Formats: sequence, C-alpha cells, structure tokens
Amino acid sequence: MTKYVYLFREADGKDKAKFGGKGANLAEMTKLGMPVPPGFTITTEACTKYYDDGEKIAPEIIDEIFAQLQILENESGKKFGDAEDPFLVSVRSGARASMPGMMDTILNLGLNDVSVKGLAELTGNPRFAYDCYRRFIQMYSDVVTGVEKANFERFIDEVKERKGVKLDTELTAEDLQELIAMFKKYYFENVGKEFPQDPKEQLIGAIKAVFRSWNNDRAIVYRRMNDIPSSWGTAVNVQSMVFGNMGDTSGTGVAFTRNPTNGEKKLYGEFLMNAQGEDVVAGIRTPSSIDKLKEINPAVYDQFLDICNRLENYFHDMQDMEFTIERGKLFMLQTRSGKRTALAAINIAVDLVKEGLCTEEEALLKVEPKQLDDLLHPTFDKAVLKKTKAIAEGLPASPGAASGKICFTADEAKERVKKGEKVVLVRIETSPEDIEGMQVSEGILTARGGLTSHAAVVARGMGACCVCGCGAVEIDEANGICVIAGKKYTQQDVISLDGSTGKVYEGSIPMVDADTSGNFATIMGWANKYKKLLVRANADNPHDAAVAYEFGAQGVGLCRTEHMFFAEERIPAVREMIVASTLEQRKAALAKILPMQREDFIGIYKALKGYPVTIRFLDPPLHEFLPSKEEDIRALAKDMGISFEQLNETVHSLHEMNPMLGHRGCRLAITYPEIAEMQTRAVIEAAIEVNKEGGKVKAEIMIPLVGDVKELAYVKKVVVDTAEAVMAEKGVKVEYMVGTMIEIPRAAITADKIAKEAEFFSFGTNDLTQMTFGFSRDDAGKFLGDYYKKKIFESDPFARLDQEGVGELVKIAVAKGKATRPNIKLGICGEHGGDPSTIEFCHNVGLNYVSCSPFRVPIAILAAAHAAIKNK
Amino acid sequence: MTKYVYLFREADGKDKAKFGGKGANLAEMTKLGMPVPPGFTITTEACTKYYDDGEKIAPEIIDEIFAQLQILENESGKKFGDAEDPFLVSVRSGARASMPGMMDTILNLGLNDVSVKGLAELTGNPRFAYDCYRRFIQMYSDVVTGVEKANFERFIDEVKERKGVKLDTELTAEDLQELIAMFKKYYFENVGKEFPQDPKEQLIGAIKAVFRSWNNDRAIVYRRMNDIPSSWGTAVNVQSMVFGNMGDTSGTGVAFTRNPTNGEKKLYGEFLMNAQGEDVVAGIRTPSSIDKLKEINPAVYDQFLDICNRLENYFHDMQDMEFTIERGKLFMLQTRSGKRTALAAINIAVDLVKEGLCTEEEALLKVEPKQLDDLLHPTFDKAVLKKTKAIAEGLPASPGAASGKICFTADEAKERVKKGEKVVLVRIETSPEDIEGMQVSEGILTARGGLTSHAAVVARGMGACCVCGCGAVEIDEANGICVIAGKKYTQQDVISLDGSTGKVYEGSIPMVDADTSGNFATIMGWANKYKKLLVRANADNPHDAAVAYEFGAQGVGLCRTEHMFFAEERIPAVREMIVASTLEQRKAALAKILPMQREDFIGIYKALKGYPVTIRFLDPPLHEFLPSKEEDIRALAKDMGISFEQLNETVHSLHEMNPMLGHRGCRLAITYPEIAEMQTRAVIEAAIEVNKEGGKVKAEIMIPLVGDVKELAYVKKVVVDTAEAVMAEKGVKVEYMVGTMIEIPRAAITADKIAKEAEFFSFGTNDLTQMTFGFSRDDAGKFLGDYYKKKIFESDPFARLDQEGVGELVKIAVAKGKATRPNIKLGICGEHGGDPSTIEFCHNVGLNYVSCSPFRVPIAILAAAHAAIKNK
Repeated sequence: MTKYVYLFREADGKDKAKFGGKGANLAEMTKLGMPVPPGFTITTEACTKYYDDGEKIAPEIIDEIFAQLQILENESGKKFGDAEDPFLVSVRSGARASMPGMMDTILNLGLNDVSVKGLAELTGNPRFAYDCYRRFIQMYSDVVTGVEKANFERFIDEVKERKGVKLDTELTAEDLQELIAMFKKYYFENVGKEFPQDPKEQLIGAIKAVFRSWNNDRAIVYRRMNDIPSSWGTAVNVQSMVFGNMGDTSGTGVAFTRNPTNGEKKLYGEFLMNAQGEDVVAGIRTPSSIDKLKEINPAVYDQFLDICNRLENYFHDMQDMEFTIERGKLFMLQTRSGKRTALAAINIAVDLVKEGLCTEEEALLKVEPKQLDDLLHPTFDKAVLKKTKAIAEGLPASPGAASGKICFTADEAKERVKKGEKVVLVRIETSPEDIEGMQVSEGILTARGGLTSHAAVVARGMGACCVCGCGAVEIDEANGICVIAGKKYTQQDVISLDGSTGKVYEGSIPMVDADTSGNFATIMGWANKYKKLLVRANADNPHDAAVAYEFGAQGVGLCRTEHMFFAEERIPAVREMIVASTLEQRKAALAKILPMQREDFIGIYKALKGYPVTIRFLDPPLHEFLPSKEEDIRALAKDMGISFEQLNETVHSLHEMNPMLGHRGCRLAITYPEIAEMQTRAVIEAAIEVNKEGGKVKAEIMIPLVGDVKELAYVKKVVVDTAEAVMAEKGVKVEYMVGTMIEIPRAAITADKIAKEAEFFSFGTNDLTQMTFGFSRDDAGKFLGDYYKKKIFESDPFARLDQEGVGELVKIAVAKGKATRPNIKLGICGEHGGDPSTIEFCHNVGLNYVSCSPFRVPIAILAAAHAAIKNK
Repeated sequence: MTKYVYLFREADGKDKAKFGGKGANLAEMTKLGMPVPPGFTITTEACTKYYDDGEKIAPEIIDEIFAQLQILENESGKKFGDAEDPFLVSVRSGARASMPGMMDTILNLGLNDVSVKGLAELTGNPRFAYDCYRRFIQMYSDVVTGVEKANFERFIDEVKERKGVKLDTELTAEDLQELIAMFKKYYFENVGKEFPQDPKEQLIGAIKAVFRSWNNDRAIVYRRMNDIPSSWGTAVNVQSMVFGNMGDTSGTGVAFTRNPTNGEKKLYGEFLMNAQGEDVVAGIRTPSSIDKLKEINPAVYDQFLDICNRLENYFHDMQDMEFTIERGKLFMLQTRSGKRTALAAINIAVDLVKEGLCTEEEALLKVEPKQLDDLLHPTFDKAVLKKTKAIAEGLPASPGAASGKICFTADEAKERVKKGEKVVLVRIETSPEDIEGMQVSEGILTARGGLTSHAAVVARGMGACCVCGCGAVEIDEANGICVIAGKKYTQQDVISLDGSTGKVYEGSIPMVDADTSGNFATIMGWANKYKKLLVRANADNPHDAAVAYEFGAQGVGLCRTEHMFFAEERIPAVREMIVASTLEQRKAALAKILPMQREDFIGIYKALKGYPVTIRFLDPPLHEFLPSKEEDIRALAKDMGISFEQLNETVHSLHEMNPMLGHRGCRLAITYPEIAEMQTRAVIEAAIEVNKEGGKVKAEIMIPLVGDVKELAYVKKVVVDTAEAVMAEKGVKVEYMVGTMIEIPRAAITADKIAKEAEFFSFGTNDLTQMTFGFSRDDAGKFLGDYYKKKIFESDPFARLDQEGVGELVKIAVAKGKATRPNIKLGICGEHGGDPSTIEFCHNVGLNYVSCSPFRVPIAILAAAHAAIKNK
C-alpha cells in the first residue's frame, strides 16, 4: 500500500518530487538536528490522487493523516482541540518547484471558541490567544471558503478607529474578542454556515484547500510562465505551531544567506518581534534589519548565523529561510534556495565556486538562463519603478526598457529621430514595411498581436524593447492621438515601456545599463566549456550578424533574405520583379536586386569571421511586398509608372485565402527559378569576394517549406547549376552546402527521402508548430485564452516547443534523416531556438546547433550548458 | 549482368512490368504459335536506366540491340540497310499499363534512298516502296525530331491537287518520289541536317524517341489521370515489318473480340485493304467492317476468328487486336485487353462468368471502379457529342450531364426553377449560401476553384453535374451576361455541361439516362460479397441519406451539421447566435436551432434504417455564416434589427488571417460549449424519438479538428453530461459513441493518447492533406500546375491520398490508436474515401470503413472488392 503521509524525520529530503521543496528541506533540517517544530508531509502523490479521485481525499489517506497527527500529539503532550492545552498546527503548501506566494498557508489551526480560552489561560496571555484565533479565522476563511482576507481588515480598521489606536498590537484581548465575534458573523453571512469548531474538520478543510490552490488562477499562470507541469501537484506540510506573537521575547522573520539583489556574501533579512509570519510582509509595522537581532537576542542571532552557514554548506547554495522565535527560543520553519536577481545569480555562482562550495557545473545550474535577459538589456531603476504605477499592461514581447515620445508611423519615427528626438513607436500592429522605423525607435508598443506577432519577432531580433497586444491602447492616427486606459496622449507625450513585464508607464523613468562584464563573462566562459550544442544566431543583416558574433554566436543559423527585400531603396526593384509579365522583365528586375543582396552577404560573412552562415531563400508570399488598399495601390502604380489596373490585377491575382498555406517558400522558386538563380549568384559571388580578402566563407543555402524531396531536388539543381556556373566564371571554388528547413509535417515524415538531397536540416519550428497543430499564430490568439483557462494547454506552443507532438515529428525527422545520411547537420532556427526547455530537448535529440535572436545567444549558451550538465 | 533485350520467344509473357503490355502479349502470342512477325523487346528497365543515365542509352544495351537484330536478320535472310533486300522494322512503345495513343510508333524503319530502290525492285511494286519511304520520313520526323507529321500533309495535298486526284492510293510511284524529295528538303530546313540514311542511326534515334515519349506532356497527363507512376517507364518493341500496303491482297485492321460499347459477344472491328496501320484511323478512306473480310478472304477471316477465340480463352478477357495481311497472309501485331465503356465492362464481366471463362472475383477486377460513374449519372448521347465542339473546358468536378439556361445567382436559380425553367448555375465560385440554388440547378459551372473547391465537393455530394475552374468564363453578373471564349451569352441562352470531361457546350444536347439495373446489380452483389471494408456515405440531410442507402451505403460516415445551418429558414437563428453578446442570448438562439437539427437527425436516422450515423459537430469558422461586404452587412443588420456598427464589429472580430488555421472545429465547442450541448441534445432527442417508433439508432458523435486529447476530453465531457441529462429527462437510454476526426497531424502523432478518449477515429484526409503538405486546397491551384509540369507531383494529393506522407500519418495513427484501444473503430471520411487507390490503401491499413459521397458508393464498393481480391 502506498504511504502518503510522512513525519519530517521519516521523509527523504532528496525527493522533492514526492515531498515538495518545503517538505524535503524540513526533512533535511530535521535530520541535521536543527530546531524544526515537528510535523508531517502529505505527499504530492496524495494531491495527484485527490484530483484523480474527483477532488476527494481518500479515506485511507485521512486515516494516515490522523495517525501521524496522533504521534505529534503524543510527543508534544498536547491534544488537538483540547480545551485546556490545545495542539495547534500550521498547514502549508509545498510544490516540487518553488512557487512563492502562489499557494496558500493557514496558521493556528486547531483553535475554536473553547480551546482559545485554554490557550489564553495556559499562556497567561489572552491577547496572544485571541490574536491567534482572529488570524486563524481570517486565513481559514480566505483559503478554504474564498471569503477574502481583506474583507476582514475593515472590521479591524473600524475597531482601531473606535479605540483611537494605530497598530494591531495596540488592540487589547477584549478588542480582539469583539473582532472575533464580528469575523464569525461575517463568516456566517457569507459562507452560509457557522465557522467550524471541530479541529479535524478544520484540518481536512485546510488540506483540501491547499490541494485546490494548486489549480488556482495565479498558480496556473505561474506554472505556464515557469514551465512547471500541472501533473506535479503540491505536497502539504502540517507542522506544530510555534508562536512569534507570544510577546516581546517572541518574533518572526525571513532571511537570505546572501544578498539576493547583488549576491554579496552577508546575511540579509528582516524580522518583527511579537508578530506572526504574515505581519512581516504586510507592511503595517516596519520590520527591523536582521542585524538588529544581534542586539535583541545575541544568542539566538549567533545560533541563527550558525544554522545559516551550515545550511549553505549543506545545500551548496544561497538559502532563503523563515524562522520564528518563541519566548526566546529559535525555530526554523523553512529553508530553500533563494530567488535572486540575475546579477546576484551570477555573482553568487562565481563566489560559490571560489569558496569551494560547488563545482563550475553545479554553479552554472544555479543561474536561470532566462534571467540573463535582465543583464543583456537596459532596465528601469527598480527603486523608481516600485513607486510608479503602470497605465497599461501588454505582453512582454521583447525585453529591455524604453522611454520616448509617442510616434504613430514608421516614417514619422525616422524623421523625428533624424531631428534628434527619442521616440516610442505606437501602432495597432506592425508590418514588414515598418522595419526601419522600428529600428530607430527606442521601443515598440502594439495594440494587437501575440508573442510571435511581427512586432515581437522583429523586435527580439533587433534586441529592441517591445510590448505588444496591449488592448488598452486605442490609436487615432488621423488625429495624432492615442487613448490609453481612458487618458488622451499626443505625439509630444513621453511614455515608457518595460519589455520584460509588458508594463507601460507615463513619462520617462531612469534606466540602468546592461552589464555583461566581470562575472557574466566568467559564467559564459564556463557555459561554453560544458555545452555540447553549438549556438548560432538568426541575423538578416551585417549589423545583427556583428551583434551575434559579439554575444558569442558560432554562426548564423537563419538569414532571412526577404528581410533584405523590404529596405526602402530595394523594394521598388522587388515590386518590379513581381509585376513583371515576362521572364525577361523579371530577370531585369532581379539583376537590380543582385548587387544589393551580394553586398549584404559580404557584410554578414565578414561579421561572422569564418563561422557558417545559413541563408534561407525567399520565403514569404509575394503579396506581402505589395499594398492591399486601393489608395495605396493607386499611389504605387503612379510611382512605378504603370496603370492602376495592371497593378491592381497583380495584387488580386496574388490574393490568397490562407497565405500561410499558399504560394511561398520553395514553391516560389519552383514557379520562378530565376529568383533562386539570382540568390545563388549573390551567395556565391559574395563568398568569392570575401575569400579573396582571406575569408573562409561557409555558405549554407537553405530551401524553405519543402514537403517533398522532389521540390528540393528541383530547386537544388537550379542552385547547384548556378553555383557551378558562377565558380566557373570566376575560376575559383567556394565551400557551400544545400539543405532545407524541416517545417512541414510531410517533410518530417519523409525525412529519409529528403535527406537524399539535403546536406543539412534546420527545423523551422514556427511553421512546423502551426502545421502540426493546424492553427496559425496570427489566429490562435482568439482561442488560446480559453485553452489556458480550461487547462487544455499549459504553455504557449509558439514559445515552448510542444515536445509531445511537434517534438515527436522532430525526433522522427532526426532518426530518418540520419538513417539516410549519418553525418547530416541538424539545427533548429524557429523562435523556440532561444527557449531553454526547447534547447534541452534539442540537446537530447541530438541536434548540432540551435539558432536564436542575437540577444538571446548568451541565454541559449547557458541553457545548452545546463542541458549538457543535466543529461550527462 | 542485366539482360535488357529479349526476343519475343525468350520473353516472359506474364511479366508486364518488365516487357510492357504489348511486349508481354507478343511473347504470349509467339509462344501460342500464332503468326507474329519476329522481333524483340527492349525492357522497361532499359528505359529507367536511360533516364538514370541522363537520357543516354548505355553502350552495352546498344550492343545487345544489334546482337538481337542480327538474329532476326539471319532468320529472315535479309540485311538491315541492304541495298537489294533491306530488313525493315517497326519500333513501338509498350508500357506496363495500356496508354493508348499516348506514345509513339515508327513503321518501315531501315529504308533510305538506296534500299527503297531495292525494295521497289524486289517487290516489283515501286509505288509500295516509295509509299513506305514517305510514311517513314513523316513518322520519323514527327517522333524523333518533333517536326509534326501534319506539316507534311500539305505537300501531299498540293501534289494531289496538282494531279487532280482525291485519294493517297491514287498517287503514283513518281508522285511519291516527288513527295519524298519535298519531305527531305522540308526535313533539312527544319531539323538543320539531312534525313539520316544509316539504318542503325535511325533505329537508335527511334528507340530514344520512344523512351523520351514516356515523358511527353500527354503521357504525363494520362498517367496522372490514371494513377500510373512515372517510375514504371516504357518498353520498346522492335519487330520485322509486314506490309498491309503491298497491293490489293494486303491490308490492315483492328478488331475487338466483343463489342466495346455494349459488350455484345460478337467480333467487332474494321480494316482497310492496301493500307498501313495509320490509314485505318486517319479517316481519309472509310474502313470496312470486319465482317466484309469474310467475303474478301474467307480463309484469313476464319483463321483470324480462330485466333480471336483462342486469345479470349487464353487471357480470359475481351481482346483488342491489330493485324496485318501481307499478300494474303495473316500476321498478328498486337493483342491486349480491350478498353470498353462502363456498360460493356459490366456486361462482359457478367458474361465471362456465365461462359465459365473466369470467376466472379476475376470478373470484378475487369470492371474499373471509376468507370461506374458513367452508369450512375445521365450522360450526353455520344453520337451527338462527337459532332459537337466544346466552347470551353474546365475541370471535370462532378460527373453527369446538364443542359439549361444560364443563371448567375443561387436566388435567381431558385426563382426561375420554381417557374418551371431548367437552369445551369454559372458563378465565379460558390459559397455555402448557394447550396439551395445549386440543389435546384441542372448543373453548376464555376470560373474558379479546383476539384476540391466548394462547388466541386458539394456537387459531388448531391450527385449534381459540375464543371469548375473554367477560366474561359468571364461573368458580368451586373449586366446579366457572361462571355465564354469571346462570345457573349445572356440568361436566356442554353448551355450544356459534361461533368465527366469538364467540357462546356452551347445549346442543349440529348441525354441518355443512368442505368443501374440488370448486370450492374449483379456486379454490385458480387462486390458486396467479396469486399471487407464497409462503405458508408457522406450525407448531410435526409434526402442524401436516402440516396446513399439506395446505392448500398452501410451507414453515414460524415454528416456535416453545419450544412443544416445554412438553409434559408435557419441561418437567421445561426446569425443571432453568432452576434449574441451574452451566454443567455446565445442559448436563446441555439434553442431556435435545436428543433430543426433534431428534425434532420430524425430524417437521417430513419433513412439509414439502423445503420450507424456519424455526426460531426459544427466545424467551420463562424464568419462563414456572415457576409463580408459592407453593403451586405448593412442589409443584414437591418434584417436582424441591430445596428450596422454592432454587426460590423462582429464581422471584424471574426476576421481571420488564415481561416483554415483559425477558430473552428472543436475550438468552437471549447469557446462555446453551449453549441455542443445543443447539438448533443438534438442527436440524442432525435434518437429517442426514432427508437420510440421501433428504430435502432446508432449515433456516433464526432468532434472535429482535435489536436490534443485534452481538447477531446473537454468537449466529450460536455457531450456525455448532456446526453446523460437528456436520457435521464426522457427516462430511456440510446446507443451512442463519442469519437474524433483525425485531421490534424498532431492528432495522428498523439493518437495513442487521443484513443484514451475517442471511441472511434475517422480520418479527415482533406484537412490532414492540407496540414501535412502545408498548403490549402484553395490556394494550391496557383502552383500545382507548375508542380505537374515539372514532374514534382504526379497526382493531385486532394484527389488521391498521398500514401508516402499523409498515408504514413494514417498508419501511425492506426497503430497508436489500436495500441491504446484494440477495438477502436476506424474510418475515413475525406474526399479520398471515394478514390479507388485510396480505398485499397484503407483496406491494407486495416480501416473498418470508407465514407464517400452517395453517388460514389457503388464505386467505393467495387473498389473495396478489388482491394480485398488483390490483397487476399
């Protein structure tokens, strides 16, 4: 029979999956002989069973709970619900991964109208006893019945006002008794029954509530943000109460063994005397710094310091602890690895190695890859931010901070920036024509679009701050204003964006620069040493390629050639090519594009200094290069010197029902092989050019959207014939490969055949996700909200690779590709390439490299190191 | 070493894959001791090698050819290219599957300026010799150099006119010599070199040309239409010439052992004396009926009759033969199973069994499933059709024949039909609102859209004649006219459509009714006996369900409930539901739809008489039920009594970038569970109703577009809860299952998990094909033409299941589904369900049933029988 309830001294402190983080560490501290109030842990398995059984606790588990409780009662000599000397407990959640503040806690459980009196007498401290009871009623109401704690605060305020006092501690036992009566009445009115007097009923109610809290809204959101599976469940810790509110020799506090803001090795924390845990964070009384404890109770302080050191030495990491002092005696209520800022994380990691507390590999695992974002972008001054209220909140699309004047079009942005202004581009959504305007803006704010919308993807590529899908923004471009949350803003108003939180602020906020020197460099050095995956970057121009190289990219995994087509001075030739009605006209237009593409490739090759560059041939449907509104078509026709009818006819003939499933990718090169010819010529001529100056170019030509080997064979022949011709013309050879993206399910399924032609595969997981799920990222926004709410999806499949479905196709493709071509080069170039969990998947599945936006390269490097260390 | 060239007497007549149909049968006839002119076959493997070697014949194959030729020379005592007694040969293609007229033939090869004189002297017939030479030059020019035969005809006409004669046979030897000089001059001018005089060069040139002809445009199109893989290649048959043009005791002809039009057991054919093969079909001289041969040469006639009987007995099938009489001696040049009409096919099959010539199973294999279409729909009188020129040609979207007055809108069609007119609906493309208009029209003609466009799919479902994607039709709806190939037609003009060929005619053409009695019923009886797969039909209303039942369907495999939503009297309630802004409003609108859906289900259940009915819940995106043009939105808003702004807002909020990848299928039921509740209630209440009257309803509720088991679990819970509630209300139970479509790649990949919830899978191969290939059927038309032309695709993946990619996903899903739920019911309900090659695939992969449009049920039954017989 499965055992579901373990005393702290019985539990296996290494098994966080079973006992949760809190439970496991309580077990560890107990075994280390530290002063932990006795208690037991109800395992995460019990939580899973609770849900499997239709939100019921099985009778055998209830029996186990009370059996363990009895052991505690016996050892303490107290009895649960006893009228004279009641045994009181706390009930706390504790999941496998730390989810601070996401779930619920109940203190002082076991009190009722009778036992509170016993407690009062026993302690000779009626004020303390009634304070405990009123707290218990508040917490129980909140956690178990959903009647929020805050609703009770107004009664407290009412009584304090009546009595003319300011602090809770100034209330007398009588005041508290009055409050308890008010609370119980309110409880009855709102819950429809009396506040439970049976401690056993209280306990089971509390345990159920903790299980339920695993699926409350904030827990679900937290899990989605932190990739925690809902299947894990939470453990529940039931622990004998110790009291920090038993008078002036009692107290409670929290502390970190090092400074969680900058990592400094110095005890950091605060405490309150005569208080229970919640008071420390409630902010009514100001807690004291932990140093003060030395003055108040030096013995306890020394004992605590000793425990801190022992815990750090034992866990090899900075600890975050809760403690209580009951009438001068120290009790440890919790220890865990402390949350820390990115800066603290890298400093602590490096220090721990220096101090010999852990190895480089262990240290690397203590730095969350995603955290590094904070060090790679400027951020707002946290102190100022704390005091500033956001006016709106969108999606945190691309990290960083930006302040500038509002600007509604890309063209306007370019002009105003030329004049020396700093602007934030505010648009309903962005399109490829906006790229240059986005580049010069401090940040981008869009009213529509998700985390993989155009604005988001492009901004991340640029390392520009972006908040998108901010529905609270209404734009009235014609009148040069926008309304944010009811207030009107003009082009002269300054706003600030926090790309890491999605928050929008009025006015400008002081910033802190990015910092990638010192310990950051040390961490990167270690990460590079231990990772197996190569990390490349997605870069479409020489500037991005240079940034990527600086950040440590070992090549370009995706150069989207069409991004070169959108530049102002180029798009006319592109449009000329599209409206061409004969092959000759088309070739003439392509001839104009050739030197521009060649120039870009030269720049990119040079920036990469011999690392390989994967160049993806033209991918988007041609209509993306043309306007769609009649007035714009008229204007463009005039510019191009052709009739409106002709251009309009072209626009209409290019219209597609489902552009995502239309005439794009290699399908374009099959219809117009001359485009692939031009692009090949640019790739090879640029390589010859750079090699002449001593370069060692490795060009990888990537044919997109292949679903059948014959598509690839057809385009590859065009590429190879052209490349050979160019090399023959110039009389030199250059190194190049031809491969394909695997981004169509059929390509994955038939990868054995495709590998006959493809020298490399690059998984285009954006499209592969769309096709595998059968929804487009542009349209999924309409229902994904419901999917999260109804727990159908736990994470955004466009941000985190769906390993079960899309990942399975990747695995199939890897296996089949290698069966045909054992040395086939394998990479990933979708947006997922920068996601740590996806990177671990790529490592395990045997890819050679991941590719991500330049600004995510350090994150990817660290994630790749994590993957290698965890999966040794 | 592989042997590539076999004498007829060496070849294995059973191995058509190697020797082609013609070569294998020449080998068989040779072995049967029939008078076959000696020759040899160059295998299909040589053709494949020719292409593998870059369109070159390997030297070792050339050596083999000339070695075999020498054996023929030795046996005949003649020499290739000899000046006095030249050995002449014919060179003919012969693929594994019969592809009549698709590839090329050259006769009289071996003649040149010198040997023609020898032949003239030897035969004492200069006219014959020069006639042979001029024919050879014409055929060689055409086949080998591409200078078309017809270009030479004008020289013949010129000479005939000058001489004042009408028939070729009236030209003298001198006339023919003059013609030969003209031909050779023309050849030189067009080819750029002299007509080849070396017979060996002629022979290799001809063989290469036959290999090349395997990939000419008409062969590619034929292969695509008949599912013949391009990898098969063609064999080449080189045979000693015998001459039907050696004077009045010589002749040539073709004959069938039975009448290919109606199957009557009576020799059927025609011949011409003093002629070579091509003259019989050229139509200049009128050939005589084969009976006449009895008068001209009774001995040869009897011999031929005897051969005919022996061939039928040997091959157990009706034969189509070519023969030549050289100076009174009969030679057999070819025999093959004869092409026949559908009527003939079923009559012959039944007769062959009666005559004891073959078993029922063998007989079934002699009827092409696709042919049955001709018997299931009215067709135009073939005799009239032969004389009528089409004015345009579109895609043969749904078979049958239709004549009627032109009508441009569905509403107009309904009105005019009410008044007693017969109309043909002519539209750019159709949409769901047009369904009722389509139903009353004789036929449907669209200017745009492919074989799986809305018009095509719906028409096939209705059994209505439809020609779609007819680009030659320009519609000017506003002025009530259309222009077809330059000519203007009004609403008073009659046009005729042939849905089996895609041809459009002016005026009306007499029709022949469908005929499914007699031998048709016998064939269906046998097919039902031998098939293993169940055949169901797709039917969305009681009428279609009744038709399906009549045609032998064993259930409904797909009832698309949304089709019920589009009816004129229903769509207002549907729209009300869509614009509803509260749950109450939406439920109120759904309550109006409920009784209508229930009525339909009652009708369908009754029509099916206890066979199962698979009901697919609402699938299309909601915007399909609303107009998109401003004027239509205004009109509808007025009708609905709501503001334009409100309706316009709804329309805009429902707009999707890629509707195929948008908010549809189960995603709708997840957002609006109340829709699934209403539909479940209708399904169950209808079943209760029908069972009350003694019915035995088996309802299968199918949740569309599932990609993750949690989606299905969510909707299934809504369905089951509702069903249980309804049954509890009524106090009775009904039989129902809940399953899903597998139409999203992810569903196939995770089928093991989905099968935990799904009681059945139905493969929705339309969507599965779209998602697996990553192109939509609406948009693929833009590039599929290039794909066929460039031999990237050999067949339309929306018509014939792509077994390599999509089929692989089906196999994965079947295996995974069965692993979880061994008895899971498996079916297919995409358009492919009626395609014979797909049906064979479904049989082999272990599905339980296929479902197709009602009018394809007999085809599917026969195809299922073929699959069972072939894969015993």
